[in-house]
Amino acid sequence: MPDYQAPLRDLRFVMDEMLDYPAHYARLPAGEEASPDVVAAILEEGARFAREVLLPLNQSGDQEGCRLEGGEVKAPQGFKAAYAQYVEGGWPSLAADPEHGGQGLPHSLAMVLNEMICATNLAWGMYPGLSHGAADALRHHGTDEQKATYLTKLVEGTWTGTMCLTEPHCGTDLGLIKTRALPTEGGAYAITGTKIFISAGEHDLAENIVHLVLAKLPDAPEGSKGISLFVVPKFLPDADGNPGERNGVVCGSLEHKMGIHGNATCVMNFDGAKGFLVGAPNKGLACMFTMMNAARIGVGIQGLGLAEASFQNALAYARDRLQMRALSGPKAPEKAADPIIVHPDVRRMLLTQKAFAEGGRMLVLYTAQMIDIVEHGSDAAEQERAETLLGLLTPIVKAFLTEVGFEATNEGVQVFGGHGFIQEWGMEQLVRDARITRLYEGTTGIQALDLLGRKVLMSQGESLKVFTKEIHKFCQAEEGNRALAEFVRPLAKLNAEWGELTMGIGMKAMADREEVGAASVDYLMYSGYVTLAYLFARAARQAQATLAEGSEDAAFYRGKLNTARFYFERLLPRTRTHKQAIEAGAESLMAMSAKDFGRGFEL
Amino acid sequence: MPDYQAPLRDLRFVMDEMLDYPAHYARLPAGEEASPDVVAAILEEGARFAREVLLPLNQSGDQEGCRLEGGEVKAPQGFKAAYAQYVEGGWPSLAADPEHGGQGLPHSLAMVLNEMICATNLAWGMYPGLSHGAADALRHHGTDEQKATYLTKLVEGTWTGTMCLTEPHCGTDLGLIKTRALPTEGGAYAITGTKIFISAGEHDLAENIVHLVLAKLPDAPEGSKGISLFVVPKFLPDADGNPGERNGVVCGSLEHKMGIHGNATCVMNFDGAKGFLVGAPNKGLACMFTMMNAARIGVGIQGLGLAEASFQNALAYARDRLQMRALSGPKAPEKAADPIIVHPDVRRMLLTQKAFAEGGRMLVLYTAQMIDIVEHGSDAAEQERAETLLGLLTPIVKAFLTEVGFEATNEGVQVFGGHGFIQEWGMEQLVRDARITRLYEGTTGIQALDLLGRKVLMSQGESLKVFTKEIHKFCQAEEGNRALAEFVRPLAKLNAEWGELTMGIGMKAMADREEVGAASVDYLMYSGYVTLAYLFARAARQAQATLAEGSEDAAFYRGKLNTARFYFERLLPRTRTHKQAIEAGAESLMAMSAKDFGRGFEL
Repeated sequence: MPDYQAPLRDLRFVMDEMLDYPAHYARLPAGEEASPDVVAAILEEGARFAREVLLPLNQSGDQEGCRLEGGEVKAPQGFKAAYAQYVEGGWPSLAADPEHGGQGLPHSLAMVLNEMICATNLAWGMYPGLSHGAADALRHHGTDEQKATYLTKLVEGTWTGTMCLTEPHCGTDLGLIKTRALPTEGGAYAITGTKIFISAGEHDLAENIVHLVLAKLPDAPEGSKGISLFVVPKFLPDADGNPGERNGVVCGSLEHKMGIHGNATCVMNFDGAKGFLVGAPNKGLACMFTMMNAARIGVGIQGLGLAEASFQNALAYARDRLQMRALSGPKAPEKAADPIIVHPDVRRMLLTQKAFAEGGRMLVLYTAQMIDIVEHGSDAAEQERAETLLGLLTPIVKAFLTEVGFEATNEGVQVFGGHGFIQEWGMEQLVRDARITRLYEGTTGIQALDLLGRKVLMSQGESLKVFTKEIHKFCQAEEGNRALAEFVRPLAKLNAEWGELTMGIGMKAMADREEVGAASVDYLMYSGYVTLAYLFARAARQAQATLAEGSEDAAFYRGKLNTARFYFERLLPRTRTHKQAIEAGAESLMAMSAKDFGRGFEL
Repeated sequence: MPDYQAPLRDLRFVMDEMLDYPAHYARLPAGEEASPDVVAAILEEGARFAREVLLPLNQSGDQEGCRLEGGEVKAPQGFKAAYAQYVEGGWPSLAADPEHGGQGLPHSLAMVLNEMICATNLAWGMYPGLSHGAADALRHHGTDEQKATYLTKLVEGTWTGTMCLTEPHCGTDLGLIKTRALPTEGGAYAITGTKIFISAGEHDLAENIVHLVLAKLPDAPEGSKGISLFVVPKFLPDADGNPGERNGVVCGSLEHKMGIHGNATCVMNFDGAKGFLVGAPNKGLACMFTMMNAARIGVGIQGLGLAEASFQNALAYARDRLQMRALSGPKAPEKAADPIIVHPDVRRMLLTQKAFAEGGRMLVLYTAQMIDIVEHGSDAAEQERAETLLGLLTPIVKAFLTEVGFEATNEGVQVFGGHGFIQEWGMEQLVRDARITRLYEGTTGIQALDLLGRKVLMSQGESLKVFTKEIHKFCQAEEGNRALAEFVRPLAKLNAEWGELTMGIGMKAMADREEVGAASVDYLMYSGYVTLAYLFARAARQAQATLAEGSEDAAFYRGKLNTARFYFERLLPRTRTHKQAIEAGAESLMAMSAKDFGRGFEL
């Protein structure tokens, strides 16, 4: 069975040494209580919970799956008890506003814990995971009464939340939804329609489920401008705010999926269910984006967590498994063969995993600071800058970290050889679980359009400049640092190239809008690699500085420096391919008619 | 449920128009009967069998899996009946030697049919699939009696074969095997040991199973020089050659796997089982390579088949699914949204699948000609050349086509969005089934060492030169063809670079053998991309020539030309990344100690 140790040492490096979280927290009103000691204690406790409570349920949950019986969904054995422990431990309320019963700690801290949950049991993590988006939507757009009724329960964790967006005929294109909301007496609405792919839509972990549902009012304009958001509880709260009458929303069936078997992915049938409008009529799409943005960052963290889990187990296996001798001569002559970690190609796979896990962690923690500042900062200019960066980085966190996370879990299988394909070892589950992360909350293609079209080009490149300027400053500041030149020089070059490449696409897009879509995914991946290069350069600077001062933990810093070097030498060159693909433009994609694609066959 | 149409039109293009199979067959003694009409009839009949018999069992076989009951394995429902039809149709004997009951048709023809089998039901295909390797080993190394007893039954298909190599502690490093063979009276041996990952090791499709088993004689030298090959039947043949006494080899358990659930992957326990030496004592490794080489090409074909299957279904979905409007304005204004095939990024994914399927098909059919020539050629020099090319291309066919096949099946899931993750659509099964192809019969890493270390560097680059010379000649011949310049120029440049890159690695490897392993997988992928570029350039030439002549099927040739262009513009640039990674060398891989990898954690 796979094991897992929360990467506390690496978290300490990124948070305390590289990104100066102690100072960051000290500046936040919400950060007052997040002293280094408190943070360390929370992370250690979270690590224990993930390893001791969630990890043992990961394989069994995958094998058992969920059952639908008479409209009720039973999660796998142990999931309910683990959730009770989670609520009892106060985890759901960690970063929530004290006004709604939260502990008021910075949001970034919850994100770190989320990595541990995703690494040990993604399917379980999806039960509380969706509550966050629902809570966010209510906090930003709900009435005071809605907050009092639903938000406090979500914060407490006794109720969980869902996001009901997708319908059988539309996921990306929500303007096409058919679910209707009819006004009823007393200001409520009768919601009717079918939603699919609803994670944790029905389950036995919490006493009530709060559905946030997109639907159309009778007089709604066509398309995405006519969508409204409703809160639809499974049980209507009674006068005391406790679960009362059963509402007309039921789970019609469970999807059979490639992975995350332990999570209930539901078809939800709304049959005149009682719902309450959240926010203004026909402004549901904006409210939805409040949910989506948090959820997207959350999915990026899933990619990170799975990469780390796969790395740790592949490393343990590579140290243990004996097979062949090193090409340069035996390294463990006393054994029947050398451990496979001696082989350069096995090391290439392990370093790929390590670089994506550590690079992803830096990216998430860098982004998390922006979230803290947006939510709790006191300087308006700083908040605006953080919001711009957050908007730019969100699609990168979501799509890049899930793409490379999937790659990392596949490398983990590959290190295990044929054993990687066998369920017992747990490596293939990580691949199956990781596969969904490239799809839900907007596929990689959708994230790429968001990044290039909406964030970069619609701002005339201004949002990108906020980030490239920061990278430029870093490179300038380190220009004279000879020891860092191997990182700073290629980074400075790439940083300039990133801007030029963007301008090139912008120019072409003026003549043909399809150029945006044609470049988008390669542009997103390019952007992800450059972003990680910046963070690895900063990590390398930190490691070099600490090594120069002398450290008792020199091995860690050498490892960090080496990982940065590997990243620059072996992974960053992928930008060459993406650049060429971007520059190739739309022509070879658009030339063929839909018919010509098929060489005459029709399925 | 996924559908499938055998790519007969594309096969006709590659076989008849591009690689001139009619002339190739006319020159082979075994090819006399393979007239264009006969070939076309066989392919059509095979297409029908794959689509009508195998395809309907693919999803049900995946869901049902295999059952072990009292030592007997039951394959999924319908598998046995389909196998009976397969035997009745004479398919197993198609390319076998008439001397052993075969129909004597060229081997390449069986490979084409194999693509159809792999595309429609990989798990089923693995039951007859292993027989081929077993038959090859017996044909090359068996005694006349062994051939009469076992080979004829394998050819007929009434018995199936296995390859029993891997043991719990060793797969790649067969020198470590512990299975023992003790001589007994009468010249037979008592085989004792445990083999794992034995595909089709036990099942109910055939009346007997012929295990080809690697084991060690009592006085065997250490390591891989002390391995011998034995034939161990499940039922010992009686005096009439029919299955008689049950032998001491039983299935101990079935593996639970990520994919190919319909195939029985067995732990096989040999408990003094009666076996017979095949070939000379201690020369089992050489015999094994006879099996392995055929099997490796077969696995490459699996990657190709799965890519094609995924492409066809993704294309059908992309034409059908309505979602969003084209960025350049509505393309299907009469519908609620445009079919997603209008979006450039969806086209990028479909073209990636198409390019890998069509490129893979060209590579397999090019390689298949080498196999025909090696097996049946009449000119010794030509045979030697074919053998060299075959040796060079085998690891590329195996590893490159499975790596890109896996990518193609993943693109298929991605085109389906969230629906791709749902079992019902069948796209995720293709990914799970494809995942094993990168692992079995030697992982990608092992193929890469075979290519770079054994085939290229051990021949001082001579084997590579045989191929690059052919490419060079093609480029020279087309130098004046302006219409083809977009393909020929980059190909000529890459072809020269391939040689230089190889020399560079060779030089570095003289100082440090680890440089071979450090470069190997990137070298293999680089080689694969250049190889496909050569074949796409030839395809483009053919398509241009036919279009210039005028064709009623112009859409097909335009599609082919466009696919070649897409390949050169969008996929071939990956060579830039691989080249940089190769040139980065071993240092960043080897610098870190096994301990430093772990940032202090120990699982």
